[in-house]
Amino acid sequence: MRLIDLNCDLGEGFGAYSIGDDAGMLRIVSSANIACGFHAGDPLTMHRTIGDAAANGVEIGAHPGFFDLYGFGRRAIRGERPADIEKQIIYQVGALQALARSVGQEVRHVKTHGALGNMAAEDQDLADAVARAIRAAGRDLIFVVMPGMATERAGDRMGLAMIREIYADRAYADSGNLVPRNVEGAVIHDAGQATSHVMGMIDDGAIRCRSGMRIPATIDSICVHGDTPGAVALAAALRTGLEARGVAIRPMADILASRPDPQPAGPGRVA
Amino acid sequence: MRLIDLNCDLGEGFGAYSIGDDAGMLRIVSSANIACGFHAGDPLTMHRTIGDAAANGVEIGAHPGFFDLYGFGRRAIRGERPADIEKQIIYQVGALQALARSVGQEVRHVKTHGALGNMAAEDQDLADAVARAIRAAGRDLIFVVMPGMATERAGDRMGLAMIREIYADRAYADSGNLVPRNVEGAVIHDAGQATSHVMGMIDDGAIRCRSGMRIPATIDSICVHGDTPGAVALAAALRTGLEARGVAIRPMADILASRPDPQPAGPGRVA
Amino acid sequence: MRLIDLNCDLGEGFGAYSIGDDAGMLRIVSSANIACGFHAGDPLTMHRTIGDAAANGVEIGAHPGFFDLYGFGRRAIRGERPADIEKQIIYQVGALQALARSVGQEVRHVKTHGALGNMAAEDQDLADAVARAIRAAGRDLIFVVMPGMATERAGDRMGLAMIREIYADRAYADSGNLVPRNVEGAVIHDAGQATSHVMGMIDDGAIRCRSGMRIPATIDSICVHGDTPGAVALAAALRTGLEARGVAIRPMADILASRPDPQPAGPGRVA
Amino acid sequence: MRLIDLNCDLGEGFGAYSIGDDAGMLRIVSSANIACGFHAGDPLTMHRTIGDAAANGVEIGAHPGFFDLYGFGRRAIRGERPADIEKQIIYQVGALQALARSVGQEVRHVKTHGALGNMAAEDQDLADAVARAIRAAGRDLIFVVMPGMATERAGDRMGLAMIREIYADRAYADSGNLVPRNVEGAVIHDAGQATSHVMGMIDDGAIRCRSGMRIPATIDSICVHGDTPGAVALAAALRTGLEARGVAIRPMADILASRPDPQPAGPGRVA
Repeated sequence: MRLIDLNCDLGEGFGAYSIGDDAGMLRIVSSANIACGFHAGDPLTMHRTIGDAAANGVEIGAHPGFFDLYGFGRRAIRGERPADIEKQIIYQVGALQALARSVGQEVRHVKTHGALGNMAAEDQDLADAVARAIRAAGRDLIFVVMPGMATERAGDRMGLAMIREIYADRAYADSGNLVPRNVEGAVIHDAGQATSHVMGMIDDGAIRCRSGMRIPATIDSICVHGDTPGAVALAAALRTGLEARGVAIRPMADILASRPDPQPAGPGRVA
Repeated sequence: MRLIDLNCDLGEGFGAYSIGDDAGMLRIVSSANIACGFHAGDPLTMHRTIGDAAANGVEIGAHPGFFDLYGFGRRAIRGERPADIEKQIIYQVGALQALARSVGQEVRHVKTHGALGNMAAEDQDLADAVARAIRAAGRDLIFVVMPGMATERAGDRMGLAMIREIYADRAYADSGNLVPRNVEGAVIHDAGQATSHVMGMIDDGAIRCRSGMRIPATIDSICVHGDTPGAVALAAALRTGLEARGVAIRPMADILASRPDPQPAGPGRVA
Repeated sequence: MRLIDLNCDLGEGFGAYSIGDDAGMLRIVSSANIACGFHAGDPLTMHRTIGDAAANGVEIGAHPGFFDLYGFGRRAIRGERPADIEKQIIYQVGALQALARSVGQEVRHVKTHGALGNMAAEDQDLADAVARAIRAAGRDLIFVVMPGMATERAGDRMGLAMIREIYADRAYADSGNLVPRNVEGAVIHDAGQATSHVMGMIDDGAIRCRSGMRIPATIDSICVHGDTPGAVALAAALRTGLEARGVAIRPMADILASRPDPQPAGPGRVA
Repeated sequence: MRLIDLNCDLGEGFGAYSIGDDAGMLRIVSSANIACGFHAGDPLTMHRTIGDAAANGVEIGAHPGFFDLYGFGRRAIRGERPADIEKQIIYQVGALQALARSVGQEVRHVKTHGALGNMAAEDQDLADAVARAIRAAGRDLIFVVMPGMATERAGDRMGLAMIREIYADRAYADSGNLVPRNVEGAVIHDAGQATSHVMGMIDDGAIRCRSGMRIPATIDSICVHGDTPGAVALAAALRTGLEARGVAIRPMADILASRPDPQPAGPGRVA
């Protein structure tokens, strides 16, 4: 049986504000990326989301972003040194870890959010800083990366356990990166089409680019979005579709454990 | 030889802003209370302050406050439940712990800041929430309290190791609390007078109230302020004065270790 | 024909966040209280709300609150001087005025938000500071007050044009203030009941307290809420119910113009 | 007699924080650029700075920046549309205008801060948005620009009165823009050298580039910095040096009034 993880960004509210149908998504996904208070999230929202994830058997990870609530972490912010971003990520992950421990839960993975994630995928210095931050926050933390990007190389150098993810609802450029949202056809809105898109990549063991090109890639997880209209329905249909084709949805730690030769996270792998 | 700790609030900058002469104070005190990003502080400032404290042999603690940068944590904010404050404290302490661990340091104590500290001293429910948060963030964390206040009772119930502190530059009311700053004579500006004030309380093993009343109290630490003009000079004179009278300045952990019967922090003490 | 204004808080989003069904409420109310960036709102949201209000023929006012996005302006913040709050209100009103002018619109009224509004209703010094701020921001600005409260006295002293409002969905205490939300029966959820409650007060020219007591009061406007489930439906039913009983909904300026002896806003009225 | 304006960024504190020696600079400069709460500044700081400027006979302007307190407006933030920045500038200028009016003062000019200023100088769409915002906030507002940059073209198209400024302490590239700070020799620290640099440009009526190239330019104002050590001393020496060579320091409005053919700000100039 094929195992794959389904991950989603959750806990993206702030104070009186909320975004997305967290309760709905938690019934579908196996891993939750929880905002940590910089681009979204606050201690109460984080605490509640940790508890709700546990109640649904969903594993949790930190979802650090730029220090930019107004821009929801989606504004590309230049002019900070990678070493500065490193400390911001340690801060965010540490805050979530403490809240998780306070209710007997554990942070399993880290995935960068929004513009920080996009920039780290392309910028090796920034990607290395992210990987250093994750390693500093916890040797066993899993780094969620896009296959073929700078972040994957950074995780490899740092000897981090990694989960390679693909996007269910997005078209790929030949670089292996996502086609920008504002380009015609960049976003897939139909559940059946998203399921075929994902299933094809799993079957091929490759990213299927819009051009027809295929980039061989390990695929461990599928990212689904929770903050758009119809997101829960699309995610549910995707899960059902995958299960109908013999794919079982499991959290990240199970995916790594199922690999014939799981990646060691020990010092031997550190560059 | 008498042992006592000298503690000071540090790392209270934010972004481009800084407050106080941290470098000067770090040469004098034995323990630093580091702001954690809610009323002051940010990941870079926290990281730098942790490193500077270590370089000076100063032990570090978390200094969580209200989520209120504009008010510097000094505005009394009503309308949050103690259970909400609890999560905010866990978040702040956890963030500092992760940054400290990333450079091989350890957070030893927690002291609440500003209006949060004042309110917790008077409000048992809030004090209990603070103590629960500290215990959740780390069983070995030391809780810094004012003797006789609600926070001391909360620490006792929760089985936390505690450091009782007095203020070098402030007059005391008969309640054991500080005379509010806006009252004539509330603040002591003269170093000699502050040293006598402190020395008298250490000799008596009691808080000396303005009225002449004495409230028996264990005195483990002296809080000095770093953000006022002349603060460093006053702190330096106080340290010299204390040492001249046979008092040795040591960090909080040493103070607790020197007690004949140190407070256990195990589950047996939990109420 | 009876004329009355219907007002609602709108534009309460921030960045990626939104709250309430602004489009729905703008089809029902005659006046919109627009958040100004301190407890909610940002320049884009304000600009869009101004335009949407204009497109619906709804007059606009400023809805300044405490500088507290995390608490959505609902946390009671102590420790700021009324003179400080005064500047914060001028800032917020001025920002909205400039955005309104940039699209050919005009800010007509000011109503304080949340905890600031509650505190000003009870604290004469704070109420006076609010009234001074409004007068400084614009001599012709209408001050929205609850009849019988400190804010009404402040507006009177300052010679401001005033609109007295009642709450459609809230029970009143004998003080003339609202019964706190956490008290059983404080909130009216049924549209028919809300309509009768309002109609009774309009007919009596008095606040109808829960005890049965009546407090004579000029009633110029009804506040409806937009951020609760069913809010739009309740507001629509209320409007229909009022119109069926011969009440016409008109914006605040029309209400004042219809009074036999409108309140002068000139210097002669200043205390 | 040659007339020139000396301008400086002031009021850059926030809450408990302050930066720079505002009192010292206000005794030297003729125009103050006041931060408006987005990258620095708050209503109290703005109010106090307006009053202090008036007491020193210094004219005031708005100094809007990116919505980024943590980065002090110095982080280059991408991904906002010029039309969005436009509203943010109107908001900030409007807030300052209202506070100024409340104490009988008037905002005379607008100068963009930090990364926003740098980006607008290079990006015509952004520069046009800035100019539209200024025009919307007040037809008579003077736009402070660097000669030859996109902002100057934008001000020209929009028919705004403009002040062209040079930097006393910075070297120029052949593009007419400043040499980035991190380049060797980019910053001039010596007062005598800064005075000669400025005097040479005034005498030439041209920007003197580091390469020796000269770019003809109207020079109306000199920007001096207030937030570096020795800033006040350098500014004072510069002023004295200029006056010794027959240059009189006057605020921006006086500079424009002294021009043989002042720029009209009427609709006829709008592109």
